[in-house]
Amino acid sequence: MTQQERGKRSKRSILEAAAHVFDERGYDAASTNEILARTGLTRGSMYHHFPTKKAIAMALVDAQAEALEVPDQPMKLQSVIDLTLDFSRRLQRDPVLRASVRLTIEQTSFDAPRQTAYEQSGAAILRLLRQAEEQGEILPGVDVQEATSTIIGAFTGLQIVSQVYTNREDLLDRVTAFWRFMLPGLATPGLIGRLRITEQPLPASAP
Amino acid sequence: MTQQERGKRSKRSILEAAAHVFDERGYDAASTNEILARTGLTRGSMYHHFPTKKAIAMALVDAQAEALEVPDQPMKLQSVIDLTLDFSRRLQRDPVLRASVRLTIEQTSFDAPRQTAYEQSGAAILRLLRQAEEQGEILPGVDVQEATSTIIGAFTGLQIVSQVYTNREDLLDRVTAFWRFMLPGLATPGLIGRLRITEQPLPASAP
Repeated sequence: MTQQERGKRSKRSILEAAAHVFDERGYDAASTNEILARTGLTRGSMYHHFPTKKAIAMALVDAQAEALEVPDQPMKLQSVIDLTLDFSRRLQRDPVLRASVRLTIEQTSFDAPRQTAYEQSGAAILRLLRQAEEQGEILPGVDVQEATSTIIGAFTGLQIVSQVYTNREDLLDRVTAFWRFMLPGLATPGLIGRLRITEQPLPASAP
Repeated sequence: MTQQERGKRSKRSILEAAAHVFDERGYDAASTNEILARTGLTRGSMYHHFPTKKAIAMALVDAQAEALEVPDQPMKLQSVIDLTLDFSRRLQRDPVLRASVRLTIEQTSFDAPRQTAYEQSGAAILRLLRQAEEQGEILPGVDVQEATSTIIGAFTGLQIVSQVYTNREDLLDRVTAFWRFMLPGLATPGLIGRLRITEQPLPASAP
């Protein structure tokens, strides 16, 4: 392993350790000692990558934007729906993303760039809704900027309530229910039956 | 002022002071010293009402249920909408309610009865939606339990995003937008135009 590879691996292991600690304790109660203990690295090595607890938190917040993969579908409303379903699935699986969302939602002594996280998702959704509008998928009279804010706001809360009740196990069901209620006020009537609001089935394995 | 009145007043002043401190710092960073300093009471008097920081936080969480006033309207969907608008307006004005919501949303070392807060609002909304259903206000096929969860989840997130962007100043606009999108998937078509999704205008003063 080259020195560069070792460095990358150390960095990732610090972020994963920090994600677990922030996810368990929140920013204020988390300590760099505990993060360090989980990595098995030396203090010097950790400080080389991240000089402060805040620097680690900033890197975690950035992870949210990196997790935003925009699915490309012929119907752009399908892309928006899939984006929320994919993000939900990743939240269930990835502690780094969970920590990132928690750092964005909670007000702590860490002055997170909270708007930035919402704006990155918002920009991706707004772009898709504008394309959807051009393709005639959106009901006349709908303000796509307002639709974007509503989707971002609703999703933020749905994942909190799902976390409180089932540790996010029922998140995809909650997102599906949200789309069932949201689509009649957003999409042209002929389109609704053609949009899938549950997860895409995995491709069948070859015989 | 009787001793009982003095006691009540002290209790309220502790809750208000605590609300400000929790709202500013979150549970973990808040200290009873800082709360005490804001009240001007003696430590003994504070401990008489609330023996621990946790006891204060529990009393604050209860404040959320107390703030739930269920507006009585002939159309029960109007009652649900008004409930969300009234709660929004109170969030803007009442630091005790803001602290209560924050304690419910954030995961801290304070093990808040987080589900309880959602269940109290949820029970009120579900009851209204069932009445709305009986009165023929709900679209056939709608699962009112699912509608309740969607309203609670969406509202939770809308107020967070509004807090991040405008310190909750635009919260009522966001709630109005949410209802504009939600109603076509929830209410019978003839009803939608008759439901008011903005705040009720104040009664005109007598001439």
